[in-house]
Amino acid sequence: MKRFALTILLSAFIIILSAQTNIKLPEPQKTGGMPLMEALSKRSTSRAFDTTAISNLHLSNLLWAAFGINRPDGKRTAPSARNFQENEIYVLLKSGAYIYDAKNNMLNLVLAEDIRNLGGTQDFVKDAPVQIIIIADLAKAGDGKHEEKLNTANIDAGYISQNIYLYCASEGLATGARGSVDRNALTSKLMLRPEQNIIIAHSVGFPKK
Amino acid sequence: MKRFALTILLSAFIIILSAQTNIKLPEPQKTGGMPLMEALSKRSTSRAFDTTAISNLHLSNLLWAAFGINRPDGKRTAPSARNFQENEIYVLLKSGAYIYDAKNNMLNLVLAEDIRNLGGTQDFVKDAPVQIIIIADLAKAGDGKHEEKLNTANIDAGYISQNIYLYCASEGLATGARGSVDRNALTSKLMLRPEQNIIIAHSVGFPKK
Repeated sequence: MKRFALTILLSAFIIILSAQTNIKLPEPQKTGGMPLMEALSKRSTSRAFDTTAISNLHLSNLLWAAFGINRPDGKRTAPSARNFQENEIYVLLKSGAYIYDAKNNMLNLVLAEDIRNLGGTQDFVKDAPVQIIIIADLAKAGDGKHEEKLNTANIDAGYISQNIYLYCASEGLATGARGSVDRNALTSKLMLRPEQNIIIAHSVGFPKK
Repeated sequence: MKRFALTILLSAFIIILSAQTNIKLPEPQKTGGMPLMEALSKRSTSRAFDTTAISNLHLSNLLWAAFGINRPDGKRTAPSARNFQENEIYVLLKSGAYIYDAKNNMLNLVLAEDIRNLGGTQDFVKDAPVQIIIIADLAKAGDGKHEEKLNTANIDAGYISQNIYLYCASEGLATGARGSVDRNALTSKLMLRPEQNIIIAHSVGFPKK
């Protein structure tokens, strides 16, 4: 009986701890948004961000748009060669660095530290409330040559990145992708394996007034 | 006076000849389409096409969505690193192979021959009325190393390709991108320079009934 009570207590403790670290995102809104051709008309790259945070609903919608699951068989809003789904979305927020778990609609904590400034070298990077880092895990990309797998992962990252651009255009959010990030520092902080290649970073936030 | 008449005649002849070879596309519709989140919900890869041609208006809209000009300064619906705009859109139709001229909304003839079957090795490729080939001209991509320029051009091709996917989702058209094309044959038929790298091919058409 004592042991049972202890198990219950321990489970409750783990749940509380996990609630304090991981973020359960609200259900994404999979309808609505700007008519596609208008979103395409408004797509652009921003380099000036307001420091105001975006809501968790915005974040959930943004991540679903970027690389969420859009079919019962687990396929995604962005394609990937041979459906390898080799790209991963890391999210840098003030509260820490997370990895997006599309299946459970969660942000799983990687590091409880604000490392958003590592998402780019330019001055405006520190202002944006969200930095999205697209990382290709080439261990998931089959048995081809490294160069071929990287080529494909780059194209596949472009698909995801365009979804981010279009979601931001539709919602009046500012965004900009770039290849120039501090790869060594990010690799170390995010504890990436050698097969995990940082492809691009995206700043997302409200436009600077 | 005779010389003037000859000039007029010659000009008329050039216009007629050009009309028979290049295609002036109708003005693209830059508003409307499916709400973005619904287009993302419907985005998928198709491998079965009806052989019916798509209209020139559909084609114009598709190409504008893919990589059209969306701002007065010449910037595009898809971003490119440092705005190099290094990617080019070749279009294979029954009437021939063309290069998309976004500024003039034209398809300029490259080869008056149906080479759509070179857009892929799979059986379904011959059915689709349109094959789009995204080609990176690394001569336009600055002074970096070949590998870096190719990495960036691959990401930038992904942007364009996702626009094609979303336009097709919005319009109920079928599409699928692939890397496996007959590069040697296409390079020869399209008279590509060594700096022009074939990145991916997209079949576009109505879904097979």
